Amino acid sequence: MRLAIGCEIDYEIADSATLIFNVEPMSGGRQRILNERVVVTPPFVTQQYTADETGNRFRRLTATGGALKLRYDAQIELDPVRADPAVIEEIPVAQLPPETLAFLNPSRYCPSDLLARFAAREFGEIEPGFGRVTEICNWIRAEVDYLAGSSDTTTTAADTFATRAGVCRDFAHLGITFCRALGIPARFVSCYAWQLQPQDFHAVFEAYLGDRWYLFDATRMAALDGLVRIGSGRDAADTAFATLFGNVRSGGVRVWADALDGDAAEPWTVDAVSVSELS
Amino acid sequence: MRLAIGCEIDYEIADSATLIFNVEPMSGGRQRILNERVVVTPPFVTQQYTADETGNRFRRLTATGGALKLRYDAQIELDPVRADPAVIEEIPVAQLPPETLAFLNPSRYCPSDLLARFAAREFGEIEPGFGRVTEICNWIRAEVDYLAGSSDTTTTAADTFATRAGVCRDFAHLGITFCRALGIPARFVSCYAWQLQPQDFHAVFEAYLGDRWYLFDATRMAALDGLVRIGSGRDAADTAFATLFGNVRSGGVRVWADALDGDAAEPWTVDAVSVSELS
Amino acid sequence: MRLAIGCEIDYEIADSATLIFNVEPMSGGRQRILNERVVVTPPFVTQQYTADETGNRFRRLTATGGALKLRYDAQIELDPVRADPAVIEEIPVAQLPPETLAFLNPSRYCPSDLLARFAAREFGEIEPGFGRVTEICNWIRAEVDYLAGSSDTTTTAADTFATRAGVCRDFAHLGITFCRALGIPARFVSCYAWQLQPQDFHAVFEAYLGDRWYLFDATRMAALDGLVRIGSGRDAADTAFATLFGNVRSGGVRVWADALDGDAAEPWTVDAVSVSELS
Amino acid sequence: MRLAIGCEIDYEIADSATLIFNVEPMSGGRQRILNERVVVTPPFVTQQYTADETGNRFRRLTATGGALKLRYDAQIELDPVRADPAVIEEIPVAQLPPETLAFLNPSRYCPSDLLARFAAREFGEIEPGFGRVTEICNWIRAEVDYLAGSSDTTTTAADTFATRAGVCRDFAHLGITFCRALGIPARFVSCYAWQLQPQDFHAVFEAYLGDRWYLFDATRMAALDGLVRIGSGRDAADTAFATLFGNVRSGGVRVWADALDGDAAEPWTVDAVSVSELS
Repeated sequence: MRLAIGCEIDYEIADSATLIFNVEPMSGGRQRILNERVVVTPPFVTQQYTADETGNRFRRLTATGGALKLRYDAQIELDPVRADPAVIEEIPVAQLPPETLAFLNPSRYCPSDLLARFAAREFGEIEPGFGRVTEICNWIRAEVDYLAGSSDTTTTAADTFATRAGVCRDFAHLGITFCRALGIPARFVSCYAWQLQPQDFHAVFEAYLGDRWYLFDATRMAALDGLVRIGSGRDAADTAFATLFGNVRSGGVRVWADALDGDAAEPWTVDAVSVSELS
Repeated sequence: MRLAIGCEIDYEIADSATLIFNVEPMSGGRQRILNERVVVTPPFVTQQYTADETGNRFRRLTATGGALKLRYDAQIELDPVRADPAVIEEIPVAQLPPETLAFLNPSRYCPSDLLARFAAREFGEIEPGFGRVTEICNWIRAEVDYLAGSSDTTTTAADTFATRAGVCRDFAHLGITFCRALGIPARFVSCYAWQLQPQDFHAVFEAYLGDRWYLFDATRMAALDGLVRIGSGRDAADTAFATLFGNVRSGGVRVWADALDGDAAEPWTVDAVSVSELS
Repeated sequence: MRLAIGCEIDYEIADSATLIFNVEPMSGGRQRILNERVVVTPPFVTQQYTADETGNRFRRLTATGGALKLRYDAQIELDPVRADPAVIEEIPVAQLPPETLAFLNPSRYCPSDLLARFAAREFGEIEPGFGRVTEICNWIRAEVDYLAGSSDTTTTAADTFATRAGVCRDFAHLGITFCRALGIPARFVSCYAWQLQPQDFHAVFEAYLGDRWYLFDATRMAALDGLVRIGSGRDAADTAFATLFGNVRSGGVRVWADALDGDAAEPWTVDAVSVSELS
Repeated sequence: MRLAIGCEIDYEIADSATLIFNVEPMSGGRQRILNERVVVTPPFVTQQYTADETGNRFRRLTATGGALKLRYDAQIELDPVRADPAVIEEIPVAQLPPETLAFLNPSRYCPSDLLARFAAREFGEIEPGFGRVTEICNWIRAEVDYLAGSSDTTTTAADTFATRAGVCRDFAHLGITFCRALGIPARFVSCYAWQLQPQDFHAVFEAYLGDRWYLFDATRMAALDGLVRIGSGRDAADTAFATLFGNVRSGGVRVWADALDGDAAEPWTVDAVSVSELS
């Protein structure tokens, strides 16, 4: 499907500040950027670079005092790999591609070491495979309340596990944490999400199964094949849409993701979906 | 039943230190102290006092350098209130005796505020009453591994909830935490426990139900009517068998609790059991 | 001095709820209640009780659905004990009154066990006495930013120690924590505070020194001899101005504390100040 | 200088387990491996791979039940870049090489978000440059006790900051945390350390300054130019000497690092030292 996605972000800079944005989607064969445009106002020079490891596309700029606005617009064509969940297997640690192994390690918001015993108790007896990660998502959706304002930027998956409330970021962190505890590489993914209500940046996760990274959304708030993948990393710490250095006050954020005419994801696909070609 | 209980505790004092012991059982009509003896070696003067609020019996002494041994021996007669669990009700907050209300508050090791949502989800639909606290104990025994060495003196019930491993102290803290989250006053109880294997100080908890404080042991490692209650408090912070001020090295601790001839608790009573007459 | 203090608190009750208020000041010879009035609208029956241990005055009521307002008005005469800080000593643990010892224990928001090493390093070499607690307050005011919104109801003194930001509640928790770690009994005190800007319930702490509980305010936002003491306890968990059981939505809170004509505390007394006669 | 380094590690495997080792030093022009030998007993097949991002050299094997021993021996020639600390500058975020930016993010054991305010207060006014990171190390050595057994595998830098005790791993985590909070990329480094007492794997950290990654050791337990660098990563989670999957019991670990005849580091160099050529 094809989508028109974008965002508009406002800041007030006190004197001078450096900002690093990660709002431009990953670019690859399964997620083609048909066209895109970044407008920074005032027109500060920006530097763009793409991280080897993840394909994340960053844009860095240094702004002087006053208002700053970044607007990003793109048209995206999604052509995800679709597969039958029933035939996708977990890969034993002994055979995992080396570049996936770091995604077994605990990270700032995904302390898989702390929740290992619970993960083994709750999910250890479930048949390994794609279906086990689906069960993890089912568990999260059943046991954790989606509650705006219930968490903040310091909230870890262990906090969410205790308090049983969170937002999309927390749902993703908890899913990642359980996967890693079971020996399944998992990583955080920020995205634009078609039909998300209300519109905002969304957070999901990917687990490495079979021979690729598959998308999972424990919130079930958006169809997997309507997700435009932005950045991936160990957790939210690696994929902030903006990282601010200096005295910066955040203004509003507006996000959109609209299907282009005549195009639509199949509603709530039950396929396994993957757009990542990079490891 | 009648028991011979006691303990022997060794320390090495560097120069001068103050120690506060709470190893002498609560004294009351339901738990009568037939005779008792405290021997401190060398024979430092000790000061004994009983806390109004809890009935805890403390002994304080200041020791100079060298070896210090405290030995406590007592014979105890237990005559607990026994009641049919099926008829013991929870008391609405509106009717709880005022002196029980502080035991609804979170404490150092029982952060009931953090686990409130889980407690409501997991236990909120269970019929209120003694049986609900029994269900809490069943849940803890089923979901948490009793594992020596898995926790330390800083471990909270939220930690235990995440890691799913602990010892008697942690099991009691978790039970207390869930009760408080549900509006049931609960407090920590240290005790001597008949037939505990291996012998040591034991930790259980009391919940205020009906018109008194009933004993619960989520570990199920000792019969409730074979417990000799020492101290009670908000949590383990209030009921340490010894609190040390100064440069003190702990030596060994030896604890015993033997039935006197011909006397025995009924094995693993299913009655509700209470020995507390103080609020 | 004489003050007119009071508060007005609004709630919206979904169906039925029990509320326990602790807004009525402690009553004693050093803090006399000249007159007072509680108005609950609608006029639900309330039950008042005073906790033996602390002198805290609680008011409990059960409300049915709809709006609920509690208004409290009082005139208070303060006649605190004033003493010269230079002559007030710390009491060795060996001589502390037994009823103060529980205030050496860590509590929900004051994990003095975790910060013991820092307290010994930073304050251990300071001459014991009132002045050492003053140094603790100086340290807190210098090293922690007073920042509205930087903490929430789950924030502990260890959190505040790490993040270096908090509000009056957090300043008090940190002061209490350091005192306990040094062997000085300390407890949390909620109060009305003359000249506090902006007006609200205030939180300070008491340390047991010499022969009584002295007031300390690490925020330095109000004069000690203009404080009307409400409740005291282990920490904020024991002294909430309102504890809510049931489906209750909080509306606004309005607090006042005005000097009566011609009366005024000496501005920013440097005396040691105590109003507590209860242990 | 040239060193003979190595280790011998024993396990007892219950049935079948996969182990991933990272004990083989990084290989580069500044740290040349003259010869090396890995012996696994029994001789299970191992797979070696080098991580692109870090140069970490991993060895993975799957063992069946029974005893397992891995022994690694190597001779290493160190030829570090040495520079005058006084002329090494911090790089503004606006100019940092893109591949260093992920090392500004918080990680499992380095929650730089939590300690940002303290870092700014304590180190924010120090002149930027190599000397500021030296000051961070001085602070850690002065304010934290090196105390074996005071931490465990779940200890974060925020924990160490509160408790003020730790081991080399914790000292490194705290140094990394402060650097990141100040906008200096920093990463964890495991190593063999000449003259370390007692011998063991050691942990230090690297900060990106000037145009390369410089080594820092807040413990001051070994000379920087006698370190043989093994692995680097976000924190200890990325650089475990062994990661175990399956039912494995750890036996002993023996580590050595000896200067070859006639060779010696200058004792406790005051130069800035770097051996990393990879970003």
